[in-house]
Amino acid sequence: MRTSLDCIPCILRQSLDAARLVSADKAVHEQVLREVLHWVSEMDLRQSPPEMAQRIHRRLREITNVDDPYRRAKDRLNRLAIELIPGFRTVIESADDPLLMAARLAIAGNAMDMGVNGNLTEADVRQAMDRALTEPFFGEMERFRQAVREARSILYLADNAGEIAFDRLLVEQLSPKRVTVVVRGVPVINDATLPDAHAVGMDEVAEVMDNGSDAPGTLLSDCHEEFRRRFAEADLIVAKGQGNYESLSDEPGNLYYLFKVKCPVIADRIRQPVGTQILVRAAHT
Amino acid sequence: MRTSLDCIPCILRQSLDAARLVSADKAVHEQVLREVLHWVSEMDLRQSPPEMAQRIHRRLREITNVDDPYRRAKDRLNRLAIELIPGFRTVIESADDPLLMAARLAIAGNAMDMGVNGNLTEADVRQAMDRALTEPFFGEMERFRQAVREARSILYLADNAGEIAFDRLLVEQLSPKRVTVVVRGVPVINDATLPDAHAVGMDEVAEVMDNGSDAPGTLLSDCHEEFRRRFAEADLIVAKGQGNYESLSDEPGNLYYLFKVKCPVIADRIRQPVGTQILVRAAHT
Repeated sequence: MRTSLDCIPCILRQSLDAARLVSADKAVHEQVLREVLHWVSEMDLRQSPPEMAQRIHRRLREITNVDDPYRRAKDRLNRLAIELIPGFRTVIESADDPLLMAARLAIAGNAMDMGVNGNLTEADVRQAMDRALTEPFFGEMERFRQAVREARSILYLADNAGEIAFDRLLVEQLSPKRVTVVVRGVPVINDATLPDAHAVGMDEVAEVMDNGSDAPGTLLSDCHEEFRRRFAEADLIVAKGQGNYESLSDEPGNLYYLFKVKCPVIADRIRQPVGTQILVRAAHT
Repeated sequence: MRTSLDCIPCILRQSLDAARLVSADKAVHEQVLREVLHWVSEMDLRQSPPEMAQRIHRRLREITNVDDPYRRAKDRLNRLAIELIPGFRTVIESADDPLLMAARLAIAGNAMDMGVNGNLTEADVRQAMDRALTEPFFGEMERFRQAVREARSILYLADNAGEIAFDRLLVEQLSPKRVTVVVRGVPVINDATLPDAHAVGMDEVAEVMDNGSDAPGTLLSDCHEEFRRRFAEADLIVAKGQGNYESLSDEPGNLYYLFKVKCPVIADRIRQPVGTQILVRAAHT
């Protein structure tokens, strides 16, 4: 999807939050903000928001000379999510509809997004998971169930660290021998990379690979060839998170987007309020 | 005061809101936003926020070729405020402390600010005035009372249309023969100009003048000489609104700022939560 004019103040705010998170140096904050202002003033709005975010976070890593500034935050989110997993696995196993239950929990886990909320706390995460089953859900569940039933191969595009523990619970419901879970190739924000997939034991239940890219979404042209081949061949693609939705919503394929609505631009586009759990099939095919 | 890095995303959002309010043309919205991004990327942060706002709103008037795009909104705010005045005049007259009551109402009226909230509705205004006497107040009231008692001449710097009707109620409590009420010289956002002062009958109770400037605040170097002379000579200056605070907070003088805290940057600076009614003397003298 294109970048909306309404995304621009938000991109600036997120850039400033991120700069403060990765550096205590006020000169760095100002430098980053001025560079982003300049880039955005000349931005091609046909680009999706994750393309600008990729550029901003590359620059932050370059300026601070830290390859993975969110590593500690990701470790914390993984540990917290792993603690919560046993209880929620019981919830799924005793549910009337374990697939729906696992999907809702995986979508609720999408709250662990430090691109949107750089100050995300443990209390925020616990609160988000407490609300997992009461917050509004908008989805094409029966169509998704049918697609899951029919697929021989499923590509599961993960989003964030921490959240990926809940993705594991959903993957377990998908007959995981046919599932490949994909994470980012290079650290960006708190998006999951291979160490996060391993931390939650995803490799014990399904095949795991990375996509080769450092975009906080899935920019196909930026991913390695093996991923692009899998993307083209998969019977079913499950794309987690708003970043994957923003970057893939114009791509063809048997794609289902699972995410929480995090901003008014997406709320307007998908016609559901901010905070809603979304499970929808790509509209273009 | 300087522009904070935190002001920058907000300046962008306000620019986009303003562009949409004064034009239905999406190309204009994008053009304005790109120009502002470019200006802000090179901005001297020693400038106060109203200096950037002045430049943005000048450009909006130039692009749309409309001298006073908020004229109808200002007329509506004035009419609404005038309707509310008789009831609130009774409240003041029957109060134990009419000066404090009038000050609180004038500060509550500072909610009528379309720079901060371009979508301000009649319901918002009525709600703000309903809360006028219950919302938190932080002030140096006894010091202000003493300053009012001693002053031979008072310069009252008004802020917004609509709000200026409530300024009249406060001016009436100030022995208005010694008061000069100052409005902006040229329309900018919904800031009060001479037609607004006349609409609420301010000229019936006090001297009224404009400052010659189109800044949504008081940039002394941009005001005409007569205003600057009055500013230098006044025994007491009452400056309404956050824009006057932002632009005058580094100036010497016997200045009292009366405003509602409208953003986290000012809340942090003044150490009071957003929404608080503020009546404080300038700290530098």
